[in-house]
Amino acid sequence: MRAVDIIIKKRERQELSREEIDFFVEGFTDGTIPDYQASAWAMAVLLNGMSDRETTDLTLAMVRSGETLDLSSAVEIAIDKHSTGGVGDKTTLVVGPVVAACGLPVGKMSGRGLGFSGGTLDKMESIPGYRTDLSEEEFLSQLKTYKIVLTGQSKDLAPADGKMYALRDVTGTVPSMPLIASSVMSKKIAAGAHAIVLDVKLGEGAFMTNLDDARQLAEIMVAIGKLSGRRVVGLLSDMNQPLGVAVGNAMETREAIETLQGGGPEDFREHCLVVASHMLVLGNRVPDLDEARKMAERALADGSGLEYFRTLVREQGGDVSYVDHPEKLPTASLVEQVLAPRSGWLKAVRAREVGETSVELGAGRARKGDPIDHAVGIMVLHKVGDRVEAGEALFTVHANDAARLAQAKKRLEETVEWSDMICDPLPLFYGVVD
Amino acid sequence: MRAVDIIIKKRERQELSREEIDFFVEGFTDGTIPDYQASAWAMAVLLNGMSDRETTDLTLAMVRSGETLDLSSAVEIAIDKHSTGGVGDKTTLVVGPVVAACGLPVGKMSGRGLGFSGGTLDKMESIPGYRTDLSEEEFLSQLKTYKIVLTGQSKDLAPADGKMYALRDVTGTVPSMPLIASSVMSKKIAAGAHAIVLDVKLGEGAFMTNLDDARQLAEIMVAIGKLSGRRVVGLLSDMNQPLGVAVGNAMETREAIETLQGGGPEDFREHCLVVASHMLVLGNRVPDLDEARKMAERALADGSGLEYFRTLVREQGGDVSYVDHPEKLPTASLVEQVLAPRSGWLKAVRAREVGETSVELGAGRARKGDPIDHAVGIMVLHKVGDRVEAGEALFTVHANDAARLAQAKKRLEETVEWSDMICDPLPLFYGVVD
Repeated sequence: MRAVDIIIKKRERQELSREEIDFFVEGFTDGTIPDYQASAWAMAVLLNGMSDRETTDLTLAMVRSGETLDLSSAVEIAIDKHSTGGVGDKTTLVVGPVVAACGLPVGKMSGRGLGFSGGTLDKMESIPGYRTDLSEEEFLSQLKTYKIVLTGQSKDLAPADGKMYALRDVTGTVPSMPLIASSVMSKKIAAGAHAIVLDVKLGEGAFMTNLDDARQLAEIMVAIGKLSGRRVVGLLSDMNQPLGVAVGNAMETREAIETLQGGGPEDFREHCLVVASHMLVLGNRVPDLDEARKMAERALADGSGLEYFRTLVREQGGDVSYVDHPEKLPTASLVEQVLAPRSGWLKAVRAREVGETSVELGAGRARKGDPIDHAVGIMVLHKVGDRVEAGEALFTVHANDAARLAQAKKRLEETVEWSDMICDPLPLFYGVVD
Repeated sequence: MRAVDIIIKKRERQELSREEIDFFVEGFTDGTIPDYQASAWAMAVLLNGMSDRETTDLTLAMVRSGETLDLSSAVEIAIDKHSTGGVGDKTTLVVGPVVAACGLPVGKMSGRGLGFSGGTLDKMESIPGYRTDLSEEEFLSQLKTYKIVLTGQSKDLAPADGKMYALRDVTGTVPSMPLIASSVMSKKIAAGAHAIVLDVKLGEGAFMTNLDDARQLAEIMVAIGKLSGRRVVGLLSDMNQPLGVAVGNAMETREAIETLQGGGPEDFREHCLVVASHMLVLGNRVPDLDEARKMAERALADGSGLEYFRTLVREQGGDVSYVDHPEKLPTASLVEQVLAPRSGWLKAVRAREVGETSVELGAGRARKGDPIDHAVGIMVLHKVGDRVEAGEALFTVHANDAARLAQAKKRLEETVEWSDMICDPLPLFYGVVD
């Protein structure tokens, strides 16, 4: 078998066999297939597509490229969730503890933020002492005993995916549905998931900007689940405007704690309840979504979700006093409001702009490995559809640098779009793929 | 400007600007743009195409990537020809001297054979002493004085093309019309050509297997000529069966000398007259093809073409006695015939199979740099459309190794296709693009 023949076959729109995909992924992982062949192949895949069977074989080949985690000693069904990334998306901080409180253990590996899209680990690390580097033994032991884990990758999971992503990033081959789907699914499967709720974001602050693309991506990932023996459901959720109010690490953690206390922004709370409900059904905890939702609502109302969050923080070395007194979380030195320059209805609050502005404030990373400032961020005080009067606050900006603060305020002023007529609010969800 | 943005632009089917193409070719040549970006770009070009303007800019950028030859001190119009490669194609050995004998100087750089397709330099080197490594000064001086030169590349012409071709070869990105066209044209323009007759072969023994593809390639190269101020005409010629009788280096040189003596196989002689005629018209030697043809026929009949060939060999250090006594050229130790197993009409004599069999005999190279045996080869004794009786000779195989001889005979037996009904001969040409 020769790599060039596999590239040619895909170039000619033919379906690759499982053996060919295995050969290519193995060769790419061990370096016998050089980057210049892999990038030509990736471009051919991007432009000519892949069948669900090919995409599944690619996913499983990437799983086999490294170590895998086996959670079966700790849980009956390993449930996981994945968000394709957005602005203000602190969902994992709430649904993990809530689902665990409902009796379905959650052992989850998360990632860091890059660009305008935030990362769960960065949010958790705004709590002093919180460890995201658990060993496999610690992971399994904590999951078994406390039913909740939220950490970074302990092992070399799906290294082919990491290597391929780095190459795709510099060769214009990122936006390929089969490559995105196999990237997500390979990491989840390698991390031991049996059942996965995919939160596929769509809108101008998401990787998928329209419903068709988001649905297609969700369908491919659900198909990979079917073909690889995993239970997968895909939720299509809005990311035209930020989710909730807080955008910025400590601010989002505070908002997650408020939500676990039974409060929190209405849209974010609702989003969490829907995601948690699907996890409870997919994880066989309850037979239907109605019952699941009641159970999840109870976990918010009775404080049991918050209690699991406390346990999570404590077991991973975090200072629990920050959970009990979230006002202790890092705060910024400069806080100013952005006022509405006019009256009217909000037609758009562009999530991507808000996300990028928060990166400029220091809340996120322009590139991998950049340091971040946990304290800074933006409070998004209004949603699309709101009636706002001139002079009312649209945003609160939390900054540690006067120049950045001024720049952020200016940028945020231009982030909203106005209407003189009443505007419909945006839906939270556009559909479910299963 | 960033390479990845140029890749993305082409991936999105957008037209690249001249500045973007220059940036990419320069970066690729000097190594600041790595192979993995160039191969992804090449795949995007292959699958999404390029406009004639882009292809011309690519050609000229590759010309500028290295040194160029200026023939204006030696000739008024620098005429060149190029064949896209085939089996038994010794045309340059005849048309170069013929056109020079007609008063239009020919200074030409040729290449070596690779795979089933032969190379002009290899054929000339079957004459002992013949040098193919003339310096630029030698080239210009010989062209000025003797009006005929046939050598290898003396300078680093279009190095971007060489580097790109090596990469395309291993990344499945060879068969792209704009990339093929710019590769051919960049080398010709860098070698100083003002006017170029392109012999675009088509058929199963050519790179282009069908008329549509061959015409498209010819049209792109003619368009590059127009947009870059060069006069270009494209001939679409047959390569379903070998050209002429001889396939193999010394055997082909002998056949070229016979043709220059006024003999030679009918199809090959006709092919040479057509190519030479177009060169004479394109080079402004005569106003029309009729007159050109008469002139070229005369150069074959009166021995003036042969005389130019003698001069060429002598000036480049070859032993002229081999021209006067072509039987002195290297001969193989084993010569056997392949006999017709049946009677009937020949429906096909597959050029590619014949070419590959000659490579197996040692006449060509499986890979660059392999040694070759000038003596070995195949005489193709019948053409498509011929009536052949059982027991008549179809091929003569000239070998220096008994095992290879046996293998070649076996393979050649399966190279022809038979018909019980009369078959039309194949045309020599399918059309002209100008």
